[in-house]
Amino acid sequence: MKRKGILTVVSGFSGSGKGTIMKQLLTEHADTYALSISATTRAPRPGERNGREYFFVSQEEFEEMIRQKKLIEYARYVDNYYGTPRDYVFQQLDQGRDVILEIEIQGALKVKEAYPDTLLLFVSPPDAEELKRRLVNRGTEEEAVIASRLSRAWQEAQGVENYDYFVINDDLKECVQEVHSIIKNEHARAARNQALIENIRAELKSFAKGE
Amino acid sequence: MKRKGILTVVSGFSGSGKGTIMKQLLTEHADTYALSISATTRAPRPGERNGREYFFVSQEEFEEMIRQKKLIEYARYVDNYYGTPRDYVFQQLDQGRDVILEIEIQGALKVKEAYPDTLLLFVSPPDAEELKRRLVNRGTEEEAVIASRLSRAWQEAQGVENYDYFVINDDLKECVQEVHSIIKNEHARAARNQALIENIRAELKSFAKGE
Repeated sequence: MKRKGILTVVSGFSGSGKGTIMKQLLTEHADTYALSISATTRAPRPGERNGREYFFVSQEEFEEMIRQKKLIEYARYVDNYYGTPRDYVFQQLDQGRDVILEIEIQGALKVKEAYPDTLLLFVSPPDAEELKRRLVNRGTEEEAVIASRLSRAWQEAQGVENYDYFVINDDLKECVQEVHSIIKNEHARAARNQALIENIRAELKSFAKGE
Repeated sequence: MKRKGILTVVSGFSGSGKGTIMKQLLTEHADTYALSISATTRAPRPGERNGREYFFVSQEEFEEMIRQKKLIEYARYVDNYYGTPRDYVFQQLDQGRDVILEIEIQGALKVKEAYPDTLLLFVSPPDAEELKRRLVNRGTEEEAVIASRLSRAWQEAQGVENYDYFVINDDLKECVQEVHSIIKNEHARAARNQALIENIRAELKSFAKGE
C-alpha cells in the first residue's frame, strides 16, 4: 500500500523561529517534505519569483479561485488576499510527500475543520520571558512598539489549546528533530492505518479457517 | 514545572516481539521508563521473585485489592487473577517516569476509559503472512495448533482500531526507536501542556499591559 502524505500546519509566535525550523526541515529532508506555496494578490518584491515565494495573481483571479473552491483557506490582510491553492497540496500528498503549511491559528483551525486529518503544530519559545527577549532583541524599537508586539503575540495564541502539539523551540537543532519525528510518527497513527489493519485481520481470518 | 510521566499501554500479537521491544526500551532508557509490575494469584515459578516478575498475592488479598479499587485493571484467566496495582503506577508517574504496561486489548481499552490520558500502542508484524511465519517457526506444532493460534491472533486484534498508534515491528532496532520517540513526543501534545500554555498567555498579557 502506498503511504499518503500528511498535511501539517505549523503556526507559532513571531520570534518563535518557526520559519527557520521549516527551512531546516526542507533542507534536511528534501524528499520527505513539500512546502505549500501561497497565492497572493500583493505585488512581488524585488527578488521574489512567481511560483517560488508566492503565486502572484490578480484580484480577479484570486476571487475566481475562491468561487471555484480552489483554496484550502484564505485571508485578507490590509488590501491583499493570501491563500493556499488546493491542487498543489493534494498532488503532493497523493505522491506521498508530507506537506507543510505555515499559517496563523485562525486559518489553521479552519483547515482542520475542513480536513480533520490535518496535523496542527504550534512552535513557542520556552516561556514568555524568552519570547519578550527575542522580540526586543530584534531591533531598537521603543517600548510602545514592543508592547504592541507582545499584545499581538497574546492575540496570536488564541485557540492554541486546540492544536495537536505545542513544541518548545529552545534549541533549534533539537526542535527541528522533534518536529520531524512528530510528523514521521503521525504515519503510525492507528486512525491513519485502518486499511492496513483491516487487511491483516482479513488475512488472519482466512488463515485460521485453513484457506 | 515538573513534567508528569505518561501511562503507555503496549499490546500486540503473540509473535509481534512486543516483549523484546519493551525489554530493550527499559535497558536503553532506564531513567525514563518504569515497567508496571502485575499482581497475580498464581504460584511463582522457579526463578521468579516477588516484586520483580510479579507481586504474588493470595486470592483473598487480590479480592481485597479489587474491593479497595487498588487495581487499574484486572482479569481472570483460568483459575488465576492478574491485575495492575495502582499505587506503584501513580508513584512512578508523579516522579516523572513514563510507565509502560503490557496488557491485551480489552484490558487496555478499559484503562483508557478510566484514564483518558493513557497512550495506547499496538505492535504488529508488517503483515499477516509474516505473523504466520513467526508463529509457525516457534516450534514444530501441527496444523491444528497453528490454526488455533492464528484464530486467537485474530481475536486478539478486536478493538485495535481504537488504539492511538499501530506500530510495525519489521526491524527491532528501528521499532524500539519509534516506540521511544512516540512516547517522547507525546509529552509535546498541546492537551498535556495546558498549564504551560495558560502561563505563557498570562505572562504575555501582563507584559503587553506594561506590568
